Amino acid sequence: MDSAVIDILRKVTTATITTMLLKKGIRRCWMQGPKPLVPSGQRIVGPAFTLRFVPVREDVATPASWSHPISTRAAIEEMPEGVIAIADAMGVPSAGIFGDILCARMKKRGVAALVTDGVLRDRGGILTSALPVWCAGIAAPASVNGLTFVGWQQPIGCGGCAIFPDDIIIVDDDGAVVVPATLTEYAAHEGAEHELYESWVFSEVEKGVKLPGLYPPNEDAKARYAAWRKTRG
Amino acid sequence: MDSAVIDILRKVTTATITTMLLKKGIRRCWMQGPKPLVPSGQRIVGPAFTLRFVPVREDVATPASWSHPISTRAAIEEMPEGVIAIADAMGVPSAGIFGDILCARMKKRGVAALVTDGVLRDRGGILTSALPVWCAGIAAPASVNGLTFVGWQQPIGCGGCAIFPDDIIIVDDDGAVVVPATLTEYAAHEGAEHELYESWVFSEVEKGVKLPGLYPPNEDAKARYAAWRKTRG
Amino acid sequence: MDSAVIDILRKVTTATITTMLLKKGIRRCWMQGPKPLVPSGQRIVGPAFTLRFVPVREDVATPASWSHPISTRAAIEEMPEGVIAIADAMGVPSAGIFGDILCARMKKRGVAALVTDGVLRDRGGILTSALPVWCAGIAAPASVNGLTFVGWQQPIGCGGCAIFPDDIIIVDDDGAVVVPATLTEYAAHEGAEHELYESWVFSEVEKGVKLPGLYPPNEDAKARYAAWRKTRG
Amino acid sequence: MDSAVIDILRKVTTATITTMLLKKGIRRCWMQGPKPLVPSGQRIVGPAFTLRFVPVREDVATPASWSHPISTRAAIEEMPEGVIAIADAMGVPSAGIFGDILCARMKKRGVAALVTDGVLRDRGGILTSALPVWCAGIAAPASVNGLTFVGWQQPIGCGGCAIFPDDIIIVDDDGAVVVPATLTEYAAHEGAEHELYESWVFSEVEKGVKLPGLYPPNEDAKARYAAWRKTRG
Amino acid sequence: MDSAVIDILRKVTTATITTMLLKKGIRRCWMQGPKPLVPSGQRIVGPAFTLRFVPVREDVATPASWSHPISTRAAIEEMPEGVIAIADAMGVPSAGIFGDILCARMKKRGVAALVTDGVLRDRGGILTSALPVWCAGIAAPASVNGLTFVGWQQPIGCGGCAIFPDDIIIVDDDGAVVVPATLTEYAAHEGAEHELYESWVFSEVEKGVKLPGLYPPNEDAKARYAAWRKTRG
Amino acid sequence: MDSAVIDILRKVTTATITTMLLKKGIRRCWMQGPKPLVPSGQRIVGPAFTLRFVPVREDVATPASWSHPISTRAAIEEMPEGVIAIADAMGVPSAGIFGDILCARMKKRGVAALVTDGVLRDRGGILTSALPVWCAGIAAPASVNGLTFVGWQQPIGCGGCAIFPDDIIIVDDDGAVVVPATLTEYAAHEGAEHELYESWVFSEVEKGVKLPGLYPPNEDAKARYAAWRKTRG
Repeated sequence: MDSAVIDILRKVTTATITTMLLKKGIRRCWMQGPKPLVPSGQRIVGPAFTLRFVPVREDVATPASWSHPISTRAAIEEMPEGVIAIADAMGVPSAGIFGDILCARMKKRGVAALVTDGVLRDRGGILTSALPVWCAGIAAPASVNGLTFVGWQQPIGCGGCAIFPDDIIIVDDDGAVVVPATLTEYAAHEGAEHELYESWVFSEVEKGVKLPGLYPPNEDAKARYAAWRKTRG
Repeated sequence: MDSAVIDILRKVTTATITTMLLKKGIRRCWMQGPKPLVPSGQRIVGPAFTLRFVPVREDVATPASWSHPISTRAAIEEMPEGVIAIADAMGVPSAGIFGDILCARMKKRGVAALVTDGVLRDRGGILTSALPVWCAGIAAPASVNGLTFVGWQQPIGCGGCAIFPDDIIIVDDDGAVVVPATLTEYAAHEGAEHELYESWVFSEVEKGVKLPGLYPPNEDAKARYAAWRKTRG
Repeated sequence: MDSAVIDILRKVTTATITTMLLKKGIRRCWMQGPKPLVPSGQRIVGPAFTLRFVPVREDVATPASWSHPISTRAAIEEMPEGVIAIADAMGVPSAGIFGDILCARMKKRGVAALVTDGVLRDRGGILTSALPVWCAGIAAPASVNGLTFVGWQQPIGCGGCAIFPDDIIIVDDDGAVVVPATLTEYAAHEGAEHELYESWVFSEVEKGVKLPGLYPPNEDAKARYAAWRKTRG
Repeated sequence: MDSAVIDILRKVTTATITTMLLKKGIRRCWMQGPKPLVPSGQRIVGPAFTLRFVPVREDVATPASWSHPISTRAAIEEMPEGVIAIADAMGVPSAGIFGDILCARMKKRGVAALVTDGVLRDRGGILTSALPVWCAGIAAPASVNGLTFVGWQQPIGCGGCAIFPDDIIIVDDDGAVVVPATLTEYAAHEGAEHELYESWVFSEVEKGVKLPGLYPPNEDAKARYAAWRKTRG
Repeated sequence: MDSAVIDILRKVTTATITTMLLKKGIRRCWMQGPKPLVPSGQRIVGPAFTLRFVPVREDVATPASWSHPISTRAAIEEMPEGVIAIADAMGVPSAGIFGDILCARMKKRGVAALVTDGVLRDRGGILTSALPVWCAGIAAPASVNGLTFVGWQQPIGCGGCAIFPDDIIIVDDDGAVVVPATLTEYAAHEGAEHELYESWVFSEVEKGVKLPGLYPPNEDAKARYAAWRKTRG
Repeated sequence: MDSAVIDILRKVTTATITTMLLKKGIRRCWMQGPKPLVPSGQRIVGPAFTLRFVPVREDVATPASWSHPISTRAAIEEMPEGVIAIADAMGVPSAGIFGDILCARMKKRGVAALVTDGVLRDRGGILTSALPVWCAGIAAPASVNGLTFVGWQQPIGCGGCAIFPDDIIIVDDDGAVVVPATLTEYAAHEGAEHELYESWVFSEVEKGVKLPGLYPPNEDAKARYAAWRKTRG
């Protein structure tokens, strides 16, 4: 993907992205569950590298399965630099899909962030690994306690959203949003413009302007904004 | 699969199957959600033919998608006679994955039953189609209202269980159970023997025998059962 | 509302209605919760007469409140003949909003049906009252055990849908659907046409026709349907 | 307990009981979860015999535990005739606490009914046992799949209510209600009187009388009821 | 309302308020859901200004609706200084009812705090606005993604409590509590007295006094407290 | 219990403990719900002292009950130094089982920590008490608002786990884990060894070693680890 588009998206809040997608009829783009482990104000953007789990079955989800060709370890070694690894853990709250070691390896490979509707394990170790993570919480048990890993780069569900490989994922303190690959340029350009407009509205509110007629704008407000916008180049 | 084994399994309750699997350390084999649309006393056994949905995304889950090569329609035409179609609908309660027409086509193709942790639509029409269905309820909206179909014969989750293609599915009034393909013969033979034992215990209870020492049996009860068992050939 | 439109809608399944509304971009029209107390194959259509509850507060939700001018009793006496009374009970499962006496009075006034995302009380008495009810279950305690009644003919939520007075409500064995007042004619006419089409598809499936190319139809199927359709007048 | 009081309570609906207890400030007396396996119009009354489960732990909840002195089997042999066995299964939906054999033994011992916020297993076998059961559903797996039995005749929670041994349990098609032992006589006598009053109200509604002034009654309605009541002896 | 009463309430914890209301039979006064966005030790008190949402319906909940006379914007312009804006968002976790701009406008108007059982959007921007907020979390999408705004200063539900306009709302790190308007003076005066008593108990515990006889107090403890209390004026 | 074993366990993460128990077939050992009130990196180990609540019943769960011989106060006075008090609050989110005073008394008695699947009240006061607490959140109302205390040192459920008096409880930033008393030595010794191994793996990953073959180790990795291990004594 065009890295210039990624650069623009880094300046657009996930809140604005969802409004842009709503204009295209897409309401299911924000994931219920993933939150930054520690809110930091950071925003990260990258193509989705998907991981898929199904529920545990005691004959297949065992520590031994970690050596299997279809394992989370093998998946991690396939991740290109700059991707956002995104895992469908079906929202299971009691099986930490990754801990410090796997997060450290992802960091080493240049993975931009890890996102899941499930949980991670070893909170302290993950913070040490320095991999940015968005998850639904922390649990001590390993993935095999509740989940069976079945593959990567397939379509997945995550937090109530459909995610396809190479969709663009954006994460910030409000959580995680998916932008369909075909709408990325639209979202970047319209989103950036919308951010500019909202920054102007915010400054007007700070001056004491009332909301009706300002947000959404009436003709007068549109004109005032256009004048201000012109000065911004 | 050996049809003789299927024939034996038809006589073993899902309750007994779960006890046999527990002896092998498998606790996650009964699916939370699927129930017979109308309890009928019927038991159906067959290999799993899996269907997979992810959440809706408004740009891909549309009525138009029903003509796509990866569609529920295409999946149905791939189903061999005698299978149990089992759909991972992520427990979504508000999108009916199939209605009367698709059920009628499955019936026509010889599908033994349809099982899902989601819901179906058009209750009356489905009863008319005569396809036996185990589901988590009924909702009027179509699948695309809440789900995107993504493929068939992949590993899936259903009602909290992992299901792999060709696992054996057994359904009766207690719901739906999966038997890992490798444990089918064990479950059939041990299960049938266990059914016989429990029928004898039930008759003892009817005669007024107390539970302690009978169920589980002490040495005396074991001997009495062995004698009775011998008379059964 | 035009009673001819109501007559048409009575022949259109709630499943079909949701598909018609999806074509207009409306996905939130089927209510999660309301189900027929006993499935009967019946379909009922009428304008919404809304009732609104908030949670219980022990100083205001008391048996004494039943004599208050803003009470469920007063609301019932305002219901015109033919309406469907629809109550926002916030899905509370432990407070039966109405019992046999109030249902009997609604029946007497010609109320067509009662719909709620909450529960009713006195199952036997309600069946005796003969008022058709769609609800999320049964609980013994009275409304004041969990709810405070606050008014009628206001906008409400019910089972995850927004309902405005005079929207059209349709209920059948698949549950309850709301049609925005402005879309009623569209839903009736398109819906009736769609039912006809689906009945033809069903008969084709019964003859053994495959789904791809039939449903949705390709050019050939469209032509065959058009020919059949012509014979129906 | 006085069997005359039990006889009166058999004629009072659980709906009325909850209203009587509300007058004493008790709102938590109806259990969320227990429902008749098949609604039959039947009402059963008896003292509580409590059973208590905690979650499964794989080292203690095993088929072997069924021979332990603290087992469901031992508990059943302690149940006096006429009790209602009531089990705290913490609402676990995936472990059937009892099946056909244990239900048959309870029936044999004269247990009046079995009530639980959990589920049972072997639906067909339980119907054969003829023990009346109120539960939250059916699941194939045995109790040890999700629960550990820890004792009987202790205070328990069931469906959100506190139950103490020898409280009175009343079950009918609306579910299960607990009456604190100290309030049993009150609930019986006030309840029976209230039933009489409501039957008169129902007949008035059938005649076309409006609700305001009737239910709750104004002075005129009170007088008319008093006159009618006198004729009933 | 008497500002002296407000001043007293600012020194009473929400924990103590709930105990005072329990003595009046009110158990439903603490809201499930609203929490400080960042715990700060702050306590805020003010009269409720209610806002009401129902679920989204795609034909009415649109960005265009923000210019409608019944809009969140119009409601904000009606808020008097010092109120606590409290929004019934039905606990919807995926639609941020307000973002930075609307919060900034509320701050400008002198709104004391915003409370909701729903979520907000744009975490960073809200912190910048400096409006104190109590909510159930953060989500990127706008209100119209999941909610339809229908009015203000009506009775609402919030976090399982009934809230009427002009009830008093108190928020601190334990969450949000409603005091019925009629009980405000009682809660303030009894509450302040209770705080004093508990501070004495805490100091006794610090000295090593055992709990039984101290909390609740026996005659001796009552006397010791009375003596201490006298010294406080 | 051997204090040397406790000392070893203090150095083993709860994540590692769950993996050791999984090898013994125990998957239900991590509690869903309890989290540190403020994550601090601290790990605490001690024998369980259990507390048990059932749901509220308004006739028995009253402020007056706090003087009853079976009260939380009496239970606290029975707690030996060094125990971890662990309360089965059935996950009730709206009744704070303890506040500042009771926590201060537990601290005074040398209780090592308080763990519950319920919530506490008076967040600020609890932090002042300095008792380490693991809970599912904070709510203003007292225990009697939603719970009835019924006893101590009985088997309980907590966060989906069975806990028996004298089991070992371990808490850290990942939450709370129970070790069956019979497995404590095993868990300590195997766990400490496993920690050592994982620290070596982490250092290997930091050097850029790939996961497959390292974690789980192949023969080569095993040999390299054995060599490194020897140097550690």
